[in-house]
Amino acid sequence: MSLDEIRSRLRQFAAARDWEQFHTPKNLAMALSGEVGELTALFQWLTPEQSVVATHDPDRAAKIEDELADVLLYLVQLADVLGVDLLAAGEAKIARNETRFPVSPS
Amino acid sequence: MSLDEIRSRLRQFAAARDWEQFHTPKNLAMALSGEVGELTALFQWLTPEQSVVATHDPDRAAKIEDELADVLLYLVQLADVLGVDLLAAGEAKIARNETRFPVSPS
Amino acid sequence: MSLDEIRSRLRQFAAARDWEQFHTPKNLAMALSGEVGELTALFQWLTPEQSVVATHDPDRAAKIEDELADVLLYLVQLADVLGVDLLAAGEAKIARNETRFPVSPS
Amino acid sequence: MSLDEIRSRLRQFAAARDWEQFHTPKNLAMALSGEVGELTALFQWLTPEQSVVATHDPDRAAKIEDELADVLLYLVQLADVLGVDLLAAGEAKIARNETRFPVSPS
Repeated sequence: MSLDEIRSRLRQFAAARDWEQFHTPKNLAMALSGEVGELTALFQWLTPEQSVVATHDPDRAAKIEDELADVLLYLVQLADVLGVDLLAAGEAKIARNETRFPVSPS
Repeated sequence: MSLDEIRSRLRQFAAARDWEQFHTPKNLAMALSGEVGELTALFQWLTPEQSVVATHDPDRAAKIEDELADVLLYLVQLADVLGVDLLAAGEAKIARNETRFPVSPS
Repeated sequence: MSLDEIRSRLRQFAAARDWEQFHTPKNLAMALSGEVGELTALFQWLTPEQSVVATHDPDRAAKIEDELADVLLYLVQLADVLGVDLLAAGEAKIARNETRFPVSPS
Repeated sequence: MSLDEIRSRLRQFAAARDWEQFHTPKNLAMALSGEVGELTALFQWLTPEQSVVATHDPDRAAKIEDELADVLLYLVQLADVLGVDLLAAGEAKIARNETRFPVSPS
């Protein structure tokens, strides 16, 4: 499934439940923020080293995947209601970062 | 550019700058959280109605696209270092949500 | 109970459980971030007008108080481990804001 | 300056600028979230050990104090518009945590 297909599926999901009325950019930004908070909480007491192997524990892996998914889904919906092409925005930002942080000559 | 291509480009970007050492899941979760904070701040004083047309102002639209991109790029990197397939996780979550929130019969 | 007394009580709480080892500024910043995410989530689908009367519902009021408390407690602990006087920092910031945003003459 | 005095000063500050109209709980929760994002960003690339001494650098210390203050000020305003006594809520939560996480007998 591509990001475009996820966007379409989320549109249908919201339309079928008459939830589009709740999906203003303001509300979706808050929902995104809430899900990122839940994701962050999964790593808060781990050392950086423990965080690297966090998915080795199946229960924790399932929670992490679930929260990563929630973040992705709200991000896709937020970009969609704003009319922003998320992949194009991401590509443009990578290009800006490549100029902003040049590679040191070795 | 697909999400897979963005992931590859971000891997190359980090490797070329020797930044992989900083990209633990713990650090990337914090970076994601910081960017979502910046994104949220763009909508904090807008009414829901104003947020719907937020991208009509070109300056604000550029800032919003920039922050959406930052969120996407850290999300992709976080999933990558954790070995999570972001699109598969998103698809699985949509499927769970479709079961969890059945459409009311009309 | 004053903010100073809350800080003392939190120090005792952590010491009695040998949790001080987890209370690095980095970890506490993440914990604070997670709690703010939970607090934000309580308001995400409310209109601004509904948010004004959110505490009229006793169940929601209890959740809001609980999350506000969590945010306060992590904020106090974070300032404490960093050696920052939270009230002095707040007072200094108000003074800066009063200069930065002068009142319009009427 | 006590937390009560900070609350009074913030009320006057908002009233003098006619900003009370923007201070719905929904908006203030977003503002709080944005400030916590900025605070988190100050620690994102630090190791836990580096975060412990983060305030030893005067420039970084000033930024950290500034962000801690911003978080405190929005938290106080959010509790205020909701009619929640922040210190009482914090004290009640500590009491619940003391019951929830009993100290192990040694």
